[in-house]
Amino acid sequence: MAVHLSAPDAAALLPIAGVRIGVAEAGIRKAGRKDLTVLLLDAGASVAGVFTQNRFCAAPVQVCREHLAGTQGIRAMVINTGNANAGTGADGLARARQSCAALAGKLGLSQQQVLPFSTGVIMETLPVERIVAGLDAALADAQADHWLRAAEAIMTTDTVPKAFSAQLLIDGVPVSITGISKGAGMIRPNMATMLGFMATDACVAPALMKQLAAELADGSFNRITVDGDTSTNDSFVVMATNQAAHAPITSLDSAAARALRATMLGVAQKLAQAIVRDGEGATKFITLRIEGGTTQDECRQVAYAIAHSPLVKTAFFASDPNLGRILAAVGYAGIADLDQTQIDLYLDDVHVATGGGRHPAYREEDGQRVMKQADITVRVLLGRGAASDTVWTCDLSHDYVSINADYRS
Amino acid sequence: MAVHLSAPDAAALLPIAGVRIGVAEAGIRKAGRKDLTVLLLDAGASVAGVFTQNRFCAAPVQVCREHLAGTQGIRAMVINTGNANAGTGADGLARARQSCAALAGKLGLSQQQVLPFSTGVIMETLPVERIVAGLDAALADAQADHWLRAAEAIMTTDTVPKAFSAQLLIDGVPVSITGISKGAGMIRPNMATMLGFMATDACVAPALMKQLAAELADGSFNRITVDGDTSTNDSFVVMATNQAAHAPITSLDSAAARALRATMLGVAQKLAQAIVRDGEGATKFITLRIEGGTTQDECRQVAYAIAHSPLVKTAFFASDPNLGRILAAVGYAGIADLDQTQIDLYLDDVHVATGGGRHPAYREEDGQRVMKQADITVRVLLGRGAASDTVWTCDLSHDYVSINADYRS
Repeated sequence: MAVHLSAPDAAALLPIAGVRIGVAEAGIRKAGRKDLTVLLLDAGASVAGVFTQNRFCAAPVQVCREHLAGTQGIRAMVINTGNANAGTGADGLARARQSCAALAGKLGLSQQQVLPFSTGVIMETLPVERIVAGLDAALADAQADHWLRAAEAIMTTDTVPKAFSAQLLIDGVPVSITGISKGAGMIRPNMATMLGFMATDACVAPALMKQLAAELADGSFNRITVDGDTSTNDSFVVMATNQAAHAPITSLDSAAARALRATMLGVAQKLAQAIVRDGEGATKFITLRIEGGTTQDECRQVAYAIAHSPLVKTAFFASDPNLGRILAAVGYAGIADLDQTQIDLYLDDVHVATGGGRHPAYREEDGQRVMKQADITVRVLLGRGAASDTVWTCDLSHDYVSINADYRS
Repeated sequence: MAVHLSAPDAAALLPIAGVRIGVAEAGIRKAGRKDLTVLLLDAGASVAGVFTQNRFCAAPVQVCREHLAGTQGIRAMVINTGNANAGTGADGLARARQSCAALAGKLGLSQQQVLPFSTGVIMETLPVERIVAGLDAALADAQADHWLRAAEAIMTTDTVPKAFSAQLLIDGVPVSITGISKGAGMIRPNMATMLGFMATDACVAPALMKQLAAELADGSFNRITVDGDTSTNDSFVVMATNQAAHAPITSLDSAAARALRATMLGVAQKLAQAIVRDGEGATKFITLRIEGGTTQDECRQVAYAIAHSPLVKTAFFASDPNLGRILAAVGYAGIADLDQTQIDLYLDDVHVATGGGRHPAYREEDGQRVMKQADITVRVLLGRGAASDTVWTCDLSHDYVSINADYRS
């Protein structure tokens, strides 16, 4: 069902010096599937993360935040699918810590050097003993070229593994970037997580990592939505192993930093967009481009109002150019002084509405033509200022209802 | 498909002294259906309205606001289905005024004494000439006991007409209240409107009407949601014909005002809940009761986060007690200092979660039993304060997608 998205080629994914990955079948929820991943980092890596804003955040998210705030370098990650360890109270926290301690013990690390990640059903007890029992097999599997295996092992309702690489030169030295993700984000919050992991061998001062991760998330994962639900477990981790032979980046304003960030953002956007393209039941990939706002925030607010409207989403599913639904969503986006007579609306190249009303030259068959495409760009001109923003989303289909009504059975 | 909702009995609806209603088949969108209603008020009625907050409000909403702000008493209303006259720019405004002028001309009134209402598809030109041509037939039909005919004539995708009456004594004098509504509200915003009309023969000073209408809307129509979309046309009008023989109500703090308001609120809530019960594709009616908040606003915010979560709504459709989805929605409702360890969750009488985790005594079969009911109450205890609030909503089914994907065809 994924919209214009195919599985990555393992050979196209670049290993990152200083990162090894191993997976195992731990039988966490179902037998016979890869559901446990360990990611091992050489000493000296810079690591930062961005996590869900949900106040009901899962136990592993709470532990990640603690461990990343510590002074010991992060050296390993343990990731399971099948169970989100969310809504599990103090017992869930203890189990998340137990999984870190078990992996730390096997690697001669402190528990604070391990980050835990879980994704799956909410409000069920994490079978941590199965994770612990699976660690040896996962560690034995650890290799630098196992990114695709990890992309597969973190899938839940995803139909396609998501992994992308890129390269650039810094001071003439080749630097590699590889990232993987799995749906959910605001997409499959019940499954219950967007997970994203991105590594580079570039040399980035640890003090810069938090801001870099935030900027990358802001331009990618924070620009996508499927159903507006924000997961309890959303996590995006960025690692720089500092093994490439260029001069370390110590300022995000340097030319090297800008080049690295742009290339990393390209990978992050592909990872984020892949989640939407593989959205539950998605048949259309929709780019919402809002221009002419007074601030970027108000543009994003309008984009999300459109992206979250079930009426707009069902119209895209039906390829029905029922475009008044888009104007209505713009109207309730929460801009108090919006002047509807200044609004223009485009569907790809088709000028649908002008001055808040139907464009005189707009013909329904032109709207219909664009609506039938699998990739559609909606442009709204607010006529208020010079700010703009972009959000990516998908349609709402019968399959979305089926998948979410039947998911646990 | 409507959940526990049957058509009203015409005989149970009370005529209101000073109100007459007539309907006609004007062929506005389709031939052979009642699509035009006129409501005639004797001189001296007190009238107020509450309208959509959507900045893309429809032309008739703009005209209603103007005419209600005028000093001439409102004497008539003209209501059409089949076309919302929204997203229609200056031409739409002219057409809305034209319909008022035509009815005013036939009644010897000024155009400012007429309120227009439209509901139907957005962004299409209102065929005002058909409305004008249908007025004579509608006026010839005008009778005091035609409330049910009006409830039928304002329907769009509604499957059941919605009309309720109530009576009370003020100073020993019987006072009657009758109201009608049609779905949409935040439910069928594209159709594109919730419309509600409520009349009483009670004597209420004109100066009090605006606040009375706002309070009634706040406790009823502003407490319902189906899909979170806010219509361009939502309108709720309250009329007091001042024909009952009790001493006029001149303060909303008087005992008579409190009694009248409570009885009117009962009717308004029935009208609002009927819209949810008849929600597009609805198979469940869900009451969301949020308690223990610091303010009523934050309780409502939590209730709406739950009510608008597609994941929660599909779980209700599937009768699947996947209740972590509710906790996740509470978590992203936007309360920055929410402490998840204080949250309790009940499904009717079943205690599902306590202290943010699964209740030790909770058994899935108990949740399942409640989820299978057609009427379900979800109670969330925030553990922060003494405020509470209630919102009514419905589930999200395959039929919702079908109805909205296929609506215009």
